[in-house]
Amino acid sequence: MLGEFDLIRRYLAPESPSPGQGVVLGPGDDAALLAPTPGQQLVVSVDTSVAGVHFPPEAPARAVGHRALAVSLSDLAAMGAQPRWCLMSLTLPAGDADWVAGFACGFHALCQASGVSLVGGDVTHGELAISVTVMGETPAGEAFRRDGARPGDLIAITGALGGGAGGLAAWQAGKRELDDPLLARYLLPQPRLKAGQMLRGHVSAAIDVSDGLLADLGHLCEASGVGAALDVSAMPLAEGLVDALGPRAASQAALGGGDDYELLLGLPPSRLELARECLEALELELTVIGSFTSTPGVTGVDPEWLTGWQHFSGERP
Amino acid sequence: MLGEFDLIRRYLAPESPSPGQGVVLGPGDDAALLAPTPGQQLVVSVDTSVAGVHFPPEAPARAVGHRALAVSLSDLAAMGAQPRWCLMSLTLPAGDADWVAGFACGFHALCQASGVSLVGGDVTHGELAISVTVMGETPAGEAFRRDGARPGDLIAITGALGGGAGGLAAWQAGKRELDDPLLARYLLPQPRLKAGQMLRGHVSAAIDVSDGLLADLGHLCEASGVGAALDVSAMPLAEGLVDALGPRAASQAALGGGDDYELLLGLPPSRLELARECLEALELELTVIGSFTSTPGVTGVDPEWLTGWQHFSGERP
Repeated sequence: MLGEFDLIRRYLAPESPSPGQGVVLGPGDDAALLAPTPGQQLVVSVDTSVAGVHFPPEAPARAVGHRALAVSLSDLAAMGAQPRWCLMSLTLPAGDADWVAGFACGFHALCQASGVSLVGGDVTHGELAISVTVMGETPAGEAFRRDGARPGDLIAITGALGGGAGGLAAWQAGKRELDDPLLARYLLPQPRLKAGQMLRGHVSAAIDVSDGLLADLGHLCEASGVGAALDVSAMPLAEGLVDALGPRAASQAALGGGDDYELLLGLPPSRLELARECLEALELELTVIGSFTSTPGVTGVDPEWLTGWQHFSGERP
Repeated sequence: MLGEFDLIRRYLAPESPSPGQGVVLGPGDDAALLAPTPGQQLVVSVDTSVAGVHFPPEAPARAVGHRALAVSLSDLAAMGAQPRWCLMSLTLPAGDADWVAGFACGFHALCQASGVSLVGGDVTHGELAISVTVMGETPAGEAFRRDGARPGDLIAITGALGGGAGGLAAWQAGKRELDDPLLARYLLPQPRLKAGQMLRGHVSAAIDVSDGLLADLGHLCEASGVGAALDVSAMPLAEGLVDALGPRAASQAALGGGDDYELLLGLPPSRLELARECLEALELELTVIGSFTSTPGVTGVDPEWLTGWQHFSGERP
């Protein structure tokens, strides 16, 4: 009974993590042993991705592995943290070795690209779901929080919006090529880890856009006790989005779609140019889409405008 | 759509963790911020409990909450670590507020009893499953590992064996009272956290008994490159186990049943009395059940003896 799953376990922890990455003892014992960096705070988060809820059950295994890690890493990006280690718990209906090989490939490739060591996890029977715990570090007191936005701070967004929802729509329309820019935005999201770290010291508040711009802006406003004046016309739209959905649905996807994994930031106007310079090395745009206000609530979005909005978010693809 | 789950989220993070527990920022932001203790190593593990695989779907909600945390904490006990923080990811088929209230009660009670702060997590739709990441600390170099057992070391076990399998059998026979000693062993296991910490310095290798004594002893032997001579007659059996199952099945449950969450230890003979004295304050027995050998393999168990052994382990209750 265990043979098959033992094999899978080995697949998911194929080698010991490289030394010098703070890993004293990697996978295979009751727990991993890690050496935190002196003077740093630990930044930890967990996200569970469920097939049929957060991603299509038929999505390529490689994309499922990448995506499950990416959505957790995006939380570290939103704190300005440097990712260090992760744990992964995989629940599988059956031990399909090919599927697991593809999954592991996607997962490990993103581990490598983002400098994360997989230090433990488990594999169990059940409906396909992946729970990924990520651990990162920031210098004490430098992590971004949701509660630091002040009236007058600019609202800025990295990259472009609507790609997650546009990619889901493309998937639902039958597109399957992962080199399609919109589909890639949905299935192979790129957490803004470097951007988060480079923006340290310039940002008053941050969140990653997973639930949708309006929802996540609402979270920032609520935590900070402020309101927001949004300039919808300034929103940067993902490549190909208007062509795919038309201008109205494209803006709706940007406002409500979610799964974009861009960083939504508050920053004092005096910091804008410095912040933009930080991101130049990454060839990443930073676009101002409004400002925080002392009056609660979000203005600039006509509620009527969202009428008929088809919910493209990750729930139940 | 989110209202119900928002409520549940609040239930699961009802208050900020107490200050002074190394929690800089608790649940509610993109990630938690923690302050590791200088000079300590971090000990991390994750376990996912799936309804119908690791526990009966109809188990009391309070027990499900307790058990999901307990099995993860048991991994920290097996490293001799002091538990500090946890993250919990709950996947739920529907938002049944009463069930969640019971679940949260069991989870939080064990958090309090073991000095753990719940610092984050998430709630998603899907088949009932709970993924718990635990983080603890040990002084650098003092964590127990599986690979330290040496030929001549004693094999010792805390508490008593077979209670997990006996409790599952009781559940399958229709017992539902959580004050039944065997059922309590199965549904409300008590991770040996204090024992693990008090045994620091005396133990050459350790593992917690989750898969079953024979399986977990095999893991210790494999990691340490040793064999084991087991004295089956010396195994301490859980209270009520022989009465419930008869002597033969009781011993089989102790050898193969799993879900006991006792500590299986290697220790030099010279350390036995000191180790026992450490555990006296906890009124916890430490029983020698054999010794490690230089010849690979486990002796002392007649393979015939396990013939007809009904697999009581946690898989598919």
